[in-house]
Amino acid sequence: MAKIAPLSGFPEFLPEHRIVELHVLDTVRRIFELHGFAPLETRSVEPLEQMLRKGEIDKEVYVLRRLHAEEDAGAGPVAGQQLGLHFDLTVPFARYVLQHAGQLEFPFRRYQIQKVWRGERPQDGRYREFTQADIDIVGRETLAFHHEVEVALVMAEVFGALPIPRATLRVNNRKLAEGFFLGLGATDSAAALRAIDKLDKVGAAGVADMLVRDAGLTAAAAERCLELAAITTSDTGFAAQVRELGVDHPLLDQGIDELTAVVGAAHARRPGAVVADLRIARGLDYYTGTVYETVLDGYENLGSICSGGRYDALASDGRTTYPGVGISLGVSRLLVPLLADGAIDASRSVPTCVLVAVADEEHRDTSERVADLLRARGISTEVAPSAAKFGKQIRHADRRGIPFVWFPDPVGTGSVKDIRSGDQVEADPATWSPPPEDLRPTVRSVAHAVTPPEESHP
Amino acid sequence: MAKIAPLSGFPEFLPEHRIVELHVLDTVRRIFELHGFAPLETRSVEPLEQMLRKGEIDKEVYVLRRLHAEEDAGAGPVAGQQLGLHFDLTVPFARYVLQHAGQLEFPFRRYQIQKVWRGERPQDGRYREFTQADIDIVGRETLAFHHEVEVALVMAEVFGALPIPRATLRVNNRKLAEGFFLGLGATDSAAALRAIDKLDKVGAAGVADMLVRDAGLTAAAAERCLELAAITTSDTGFAAQVRELGVDHPLLDQGIDELTAVVGAAHARRPGAVVADLRIARGLDYYTGTVYETVLDGYENLGSICSGGRYDALASDGRTTYPGVGISLGVSRLLVPLLADGAIDASRSVPTCVLVAVADEEHRDTSERVADLLRARGISTEVAPSAAKFGKQIRHADRRGIPFVWFPDPVGTGSVKDIRSGDQVEADPATWSPPPEDLRPTVRSVAHAVTPPEESHP
Repeated sequence: MAKIAPLSGFPEFLPEHRIVELHVLDTVRRIFELHGFAPLETRSVEPLEQMLRKGEIDKEVYVLRRLHAEEDAGAGPVAGQQLGLHFDLTVPFARYVLQHAGQLEFPFRRYQIQKVWRGERPQDGRYREFTQADIDIVGRETLAFHHEVEVALVMAEVFGALPIPRATLRVNNRKLAEGFFLGLGATDSAAALRAIDKLDKVGAAGVADMLVRDAGLTAAAAERCLELAAITTSDTGFAAQVRELGVDHPLLDQGIDELTAVVGAAHARRPGAVVADLRIARGLDYYTGTVYETVLDGYENLGSICSGGRYDALASDGRTTYPGVGISLGVSRLLVPLLADGAIDASRSVPTCVLVAVADEEHRDTSERVADLLRARGISTEVAPSAAKFGKQIRHADRRGIPFVWFPDPVGTGSVKDIRSGDQVEADPATWSPPPEDLRPTVRSVAHAVTPPEESHP
Repeated sequence: MAKIAPLSGFPEFLPEHRIVELHVLDTVRRIFELHGFAPLETRSVEPLEQMLRKGEIDKEVYVLRRLHAEEDAGAGPVAGQQLGLHFDLTVPFARYVLQHAGQLEFPFRRYQIQKVWRGERPQDGRYREFTQADIDIVGRETLAFHHEVEVALVMAEVFGALPIPRATLRVNNRKLAEGFFLGLGATDSAAALRAIDKLDKVGAAGVADMLVRDAGLTAAAAERCLELAAITTSDTGFAAQVRELGVDHPLLDQGIDELTAVVGAAHARRPGAVVADLRIARGLDYYTGTVYETVLDGYENLGSICSGGRYDALASDGRTTYPGVGISLGVSRLLVPLLADGAIDASRSVPTCVLVAVADEEHRDTSERVADLLRARGISTEVAPSAAKFGKQIRHADRRGIPFVWFPDPVGTGSVKDIRSGDQVEADPATWSPPPEDLRPTVRSVAHAVTPPEESHP
């Protein structure tokens, strides 16, 4: 049979890498739960017409069809509605909030860690199936600003707890940007925002042209916008720099105050974890306050690994509007490159801490009893698959990184060997414990040749 | 806007039910890992032609199509192969083993907890999207019999640890059944097995007809087969009952020995958890040894909630054959009815143990500091979303089942109130801890009116 090739865009891990991924997911979940976010999981599919309301990425949806669906009903879908795999966790969450509003307490805080799918052409760092970890806080009619500070701090805490290179949340505020553009006389502040979003792609001169052509700004005003976009500080110093540009608008004042609150609180609690970066635009139109992106040191080419923002209308049923703030960590986007680089690894490829040797098949029961005693105290244990020579049993453990091999004696105790050091001691399976660091596989950040960039504080 | 209806066949939970599901999934994972099963996750899609080899459920596959896929290439799929969502975790695992055989150590033990999809018409207890939790042990060329005992005991341990009604593994052996049919002179033992599998649907007389017509048995021999299928014992007593039927065949002897080993070991370690049930056939052809089904007390109408068996060729690349034994727990099939019945619930709808009250917005920082101190010691904590009257803040906690509300004072300590009892004590957030049972939501089996059936031991 031909060798089985992987499917491009659908990453899969070996067990030792899945152990790393589970460690990351467990850490993320633990911190989300510490902050009182409730767990939620939505179905993987949504009706197609609901997903396409946010028209921007309709090309990327996978549509489902039953293989043997009856097609006699003509051109239309059989069951009356077509289903597609969700392409993010925000659209399903908004639908869920409307569907269950009567059963939820607001503000409703939820986390959601799930696969999403996008039918786009796989490129570097883009996948067709990938895992996201989202938190959102959604209110009914109103949502206090302080939650915009909160979600940034929760994600900064997640990054501090993960065995990854330094991740920096880069934060801006839509009111600040819009107020600045309006204060300069822009006729279309959304167009100005879209122009700034193109800075990486078309460069400063191209953006200046767009600002004049599309946003109704003068050449001098466009220059001010580019100066604004160049401001980045790891404390609240950005505010004075914005003021120096000499623009006035009430919305600008509010935006500066809000961004100062986010960056100031973060600076006080986790210096350097959150910086103001006034070029962050986020392409999507529906953000209305704070916006977040995240850059990973040494992996800047991945783009943002964690993004989100405030929206005044996450969902609406026509009578009630639900404002929200949320942020989404791209777990696969973060982990696949780190694992491929060997920048993060696990100490073994199995959960197993102890392999119990088997002297001969007639005494397999003796080994099983030892294993049961160890498991009863939370020690992951396997019994050797065959009564091979002990040397072979030890190699079976060694190849998978299992640190200890137990040799039972007929009375049910025996001795345990640390196969790394060769040390062997008499031990009782009812009381023996491994060193805490050996109990479970440990996940480590591997020293990396990447030089951290200079602190961007001016 | 019209009320949003749920999608039939795609179950979704409220947060308090998702907390129950996570507790179940965590328990299952913990026990799988205690027994040294390595974590694995495969992509959600497989090439359609690979999934359809096991033809039986080809009608149930969901095929993917990119919404805006170029259709100019004619009738065929654009990328050369059509993709479908996997309908179980066994087919993807078999593919994974072949793809990565060179990087795995055999026998390879893995667990896999994932969603699967089937495009069938949703009926009671059948879903279009559901979660399965599988363990498999796969060897290269050979796999020792004792693993057939092992997977049954691991699943019995899982059932013992879950807050659910009593689940009983019902076990049979293909060699026993086939040897019995051959010893009676059957010309087609597979047909005999398929006939026995129809016992529920067509009754004893119908099965007897099929045994005569399709399996080449006499009417008297068919009667023996029905007597065999009626045997069920919770210990190894089944063996003598089979012998009394007076059939002889070497394969029957081997099957009796193997089933005696499975049921005997289980009876010694967990009496009643695993029973011999000689009518268990499992429809699928590829099982070759032990087969497993599981019945939940009071929910017999669900059918088997956990099934599997031994296959001599889980996978083969033409040169090497990989025998395996596996068992699959239908997590959704088990949980959705229990949750709908209120037979299992969580003590609260959020992970939060403490809500820190806010006296006024100017002092939100004081409350945040209290929350940080509690979280630093693993206590899930939220700060009140608004500085409403304390009574309103307490109700906000109460409605979600949060047991404690903290009232900070300006020096950063304050007092903590158990809002269930009303007890309030001065406390320091750097040292106070809740009672252990309040730290996290607890998941409980709720007393149920179901009368356990009589023990089937004769």
